[in-house]
Amino acid sequence: MMTYAIGIDYGTQSARAELVRLSDGAVVASAEDPYAHGVMEDQLPSGVKLGPSWAVQDGRDYWDLAVALVRRLVNDSQVDPSSIIGLGIDATSCTMLALDADLEPLSALPEFADEPLAHVLLWKHHAAQPYADELNRIAAERGEAFLPRCGGKVSSEWLFPKIMQVAAEAPHVYAATRCFSEIADWLGFKLTGKHVKSNVMAGYKALWTEESGYPAQDFFAALNPTMTDVVAEKLPAPVATVGGRVGYLTPEAADRLGLTAATAVAVAQSDACVVPAALGLNRVGQMVMSVGTSTCHLLLGDDFAEVPGMCGAVKDGTSPGFVSYELGQAAVGDIFGWFADGYVSPALVEAAEGDGIGVYELLEHQASELAIGESGIVALDWWNGNRSVLVDADLTGVIVGLTLQTAPAEIYRALIEATAFGTRKIIETLRTSGVAVTELYAAGGIPRKSPLLAQIYADVCGMEILVPTLVQSAAFGSALFAAVAAGDEAGGFATVADATLALGCQDFTRYAPRTDATGSYEPLYRIYCELHDHFAAADGPMKRLLAISQAVRGA
Amino acid sequence: MMTYAIGIDYGTQSARAELVRLSDGAVVASAEDPYAHGVMEDQLPSGVKLGPSWAVQDGRDYWDLAVALVRRLVNDSQVDPSSIIGLGIDATSCTMLALDADLEPLSALPEFADEPLAHVLLWKHHAAQPYADELNRIAAERGEAFLPRCGGKVSSEWLFPKIMQVAAEAPHVYAATRCFSEIADWLGFKLTGKHVKSNVMAGYKALWTEESGYPAQDFFAALNPTMTDVVAEKLPAPVATVGGRVGYLTPEAADRLGLTAATAVAVAQSDACVVPAALGLNRVGQMVMSVGTSTCHLLLGDDFAEVPGMCGAVKDGTSPGFVSYELGQAAVGDIFGWFADGYVSPALVEAAEGDGIGVYELLEHQASELAIGESGIVALDWWNGNRSVLVDADLTGVIVGLTLQTAPAEIYRALIEATAFGTRKIIETLRTSGVAVTELYAAGGIPRKSPLLAQIYADVCGMEILVPTLVQSAAFGSALFAAVAAGDEAGGFATVADATLALGCQDFTRYAPRTDATGSYEPLYRIYCELHDHFAAADGPMKRLLAISQAVRGA
Repeated sequence: MMTYAIGIDYGTQSARAELVRLSDGAVVASAEDPYAHGVMEDQLPSGVKLGPSWAVQDGRDYWDLAVALVRRLVNDSQVDPSSIIGLGIDATSCTMLALDADLEPLSALPEFADEPLAHVLLWKHHAAQPYADELNRIAAERGEAFLPRCGGKVSSEWLFPKIMQVAAEAPHVYAATRCFSEIADWLGFKLTGKHVKSNVMAGYKALWTEESGYPAQDFFAALNPTMTDVVAEKLPAPVATVGGRVGYLTPEAADRLGLTAATAVAVAQSDACVVPAALGLNRVGQMVMSVGTSTCHLLLGDDFAEVPGMCGAVKDGTSPGFVSYELGQAAVGDIFGWFADGYVSPALVEAAEGDGIGVYELLEHQASELAIGESGIVALDWWNGNRSVLVDADLTGVIVGLTLQTAPAEIYRALIEATAFGTRKIIETLRTSGVAVTELYAAGGIPRKSPLLAQIYADVCGMEILVPTLVQSAAFGSALFAAVAAGDEAGGFATVADATLALGCQDFTRYAPRTDATGSYEPLYRIYCELHDHFAAADGPMKRLLAISQAVRGA
Repeated sequence: MMTYAIGIDYGTQSARAELVRLSDGAVVASAEDPYAHGVMEDQLPSGVKLGPSWAVQDGRDYWDLAVALVRRLVNDSQVDPSSIIGLGIDATSCTMLALDADLEPLSALPEFADEPLAHVLLWKHHAAQPYADELNRIAAERGEAFLPRCGGKVSSEWLFPKIMQVAAEAPHVYAATRCFSEIADWLGFKLTGKHVKSNVMAGYKALWTEESGYPAQDFFAALNPTMTDVVAEKLPAPVATVGGRVGYLTPEAADRLGLTAATAVAVAQSDACVVPAALGLNRVGQMVMSVGTSTCHLLLGDDFAEVPGMCGAVKDGTSPGFVSYELGQAAVGDIFGWFADGYVSPALVEAAEGDGIGVYELLEHQASELAIGESGIVALDWWNGNRSVLVDADLTGVIVGLTLQTAPAEIYRALIEATAFGTRKIIETLRTSGVAVTELYAAGGIPRKSPLLAQIYADVCGMEILVPTLVQSAAFGSALFAAVAAGDEAGGFATVADATLALGCQDFTRYAPRTDATGSYEPLYRIYCELHDHFAAADGPMKRLLAISQAVRGA
């Protein structure tokens, strides 16, 4: 019998689902929808205002999309539901929500509907930064063992700074919470009735290791006495390793989704961590960048090394059998979007329309005509702070070199180059720490749509860039994990390695670095590094500017 | 008999003329037109390409405008030409052109029509920067006395760097030139048949003083042996002091302009230098900023002091009797225009249209809603280099503090604030040098149209800003000098002081500094100063970026 698996990839703005045929890896149906309530950054639907750097969502939107997208896949493909043997989910992370005693979102209760901190706190909710700072200070004082494992600094995006914010700013929400869960783990519960915590999210975002579990009680007591028993009281789900199975669909879930109760559900993944398998990566030294609104870098390693500014290095963190290093850039496509949506003139829009192309295409075309260094502009790609290697959300974007002659395409190219410099900084930091980086893959829609970006990354990094032709590598990767969750006895695969080898992408567009271009980028990269170090300084002008802004906005 | 005078103010893009009734200072007619060939920055009409930072014009456009505008004034006003007793001219400076043996523009000859350096080199032609650097190096080595008089550095905008460029890059143009003239002085010749050099342009832009004349022969020989006799060979016009008269209209000129040959022509002024008289300024410590595409600061002083980065301090430099200090910002309105023309989205343009206002008005409205420091953005206003206090055209604009939430109005306000910080820097530098600044006037169209800008300048500087209601203060001021050229016996005035007292503007909109706002700007200004010093460094990243860009563009 022909078998199939479904993968659902929950992004920042929308979710994408794919139905994959396991005999040959063909994508037989796909579907995508935005979240009904989108990302709330200014206010809740009730009108309750949010502060700067907030980003919350409604958890129920995620479940509604699972139902809608899976039903659409089945309907569009006309595949027999009984041949769909597995369902896998990945989501952004740490995207956390507070659950009540029934493990339903707290925000669904009338008394918490107007409480922002009872909602989904999206990965890019950066309002927990003061708590991250406090956590880092206390952890450094105590010499906590997790610090070197996460590059020396815990990000405001992670689980415990977010829980600290809830405990400090909404103690009634904290008290009413039965469980703080990653959104992807909660979806696993909704599907199977079993709540586990994926080792990927636990390892990368929750300071957990297989050997020693979560940090000790007295550490949490030092953060906030209320949180002394946070692990026992608020994180009850056992940790399960990716590549495994949470369980099978409950009859109710199967009915809602239009599948059968024989469908296996994979241990949830974070969105970037399914990509290496989807691309067929199975060797130490291979790195994949998932370039989207932000970029996640995942490197297959064989042993643990301390890398400054990494998000983490987790055993079995992407594909079982590797120590996978995660690093990241907090805004990439988001920066291009900021510019293209907000700062492109009517004349340029008209010119694009006149050429029958989009604004991005025109900017890309004009930017491609520029020689390296011609614009005289270098930018720091910190529009959403810096994840790696500085782990500091309190940093902002910089553009140096503007003149009255500066054209939009020059700024656009400088923004692309800034993100390429950020990636080179990450690669060099890994190498300096003794971690080999031998191959560079660029997944996500942006490198596929922008040959200019792929070539700039190749030239800046001095490495070939392989861009998969696969359209939705995350959703595809989750389908692959779903096939492993079903197992080979059901027509799936016994291991992630087997599935990777059988179904991983084989088809790449290759961008070779041009030696002269790499040389031309060298002095520009040196300038980027100087600006990087100058503005990252704790007592520097950027820090004070942001402090002033936060004080004014808070006042 | 009722008497009248005409002032013509030649700006960067257009010329404006006013016919002023001398009994009460009423403007009875005004006219404005752009230059027929505009400012050529990319290529000549023949298609000959120009390099980066070039800005040239066709000298004949200036003469054509004198004729057209004066005829229009006479026609529109129906004033009897015999009652128009004087004509005064001011222009941007140093805006230089090469003249042939007949004192006609060299570019009018067929053999020089395609030669960019035979054209008018506009004040903002910055391609002579390497020559300015060379001149400054040599002058410093030789300890030339003029250096402290011009703030320690000669600008690339001035006369001799421009002549050096001609001598080096177009020796045939240099050889064929009978006279290098300021455009305003040349117009005086066209009108009267007599060619003098205004002491204002000589003093501010040509290293001349009443006491010692131009620099010595051996200095010019050190610059370029070809230029050893540049003063004797190429600068034959005698220097005449403003407030004086070049002569009277030739019969031919009177006929062309529709005036009589009894019309006196004033010694030409530079555009900013007529403004103090137009505003009625007659006390030491009064400073006027003429805020246009760039800003010129003129301060009435009583004695000479060395001020770092000043353009110059010239005896009788604006109104006779004062030592007038000139400083400047190389781009102000130009920066706002760069942003509003090139970086405002269709959505914002539509919103402005929906409100029935212009884009500037909408940006101003939105920017007015922001609290000081709220945006977290500080910019360096160096889109066209820095005139005062760094005297360095090889500097570029910087924006620090950008985030994904940054709105256009936040950047727009930061650009206004950056120019205000630049003005405060100038005022503080004057005071540190022992020069009093007691009153601050803001002339030009921008402060009149933008109450936000005027208030920000008041708050940043902690000084009241007086914005004259006078619309064309430069053209009005030139009419005032024209009335002095005619003399009181002809129905004009005996001295500039008399004319200033009788006709100077009395009507100002006043913007008082708000104490709390001045305090709020203090830390932002400190950050501006830090960025200022960091990026001005000779070995800093900005300098290397520009060097890379220039090398690539030149290659």
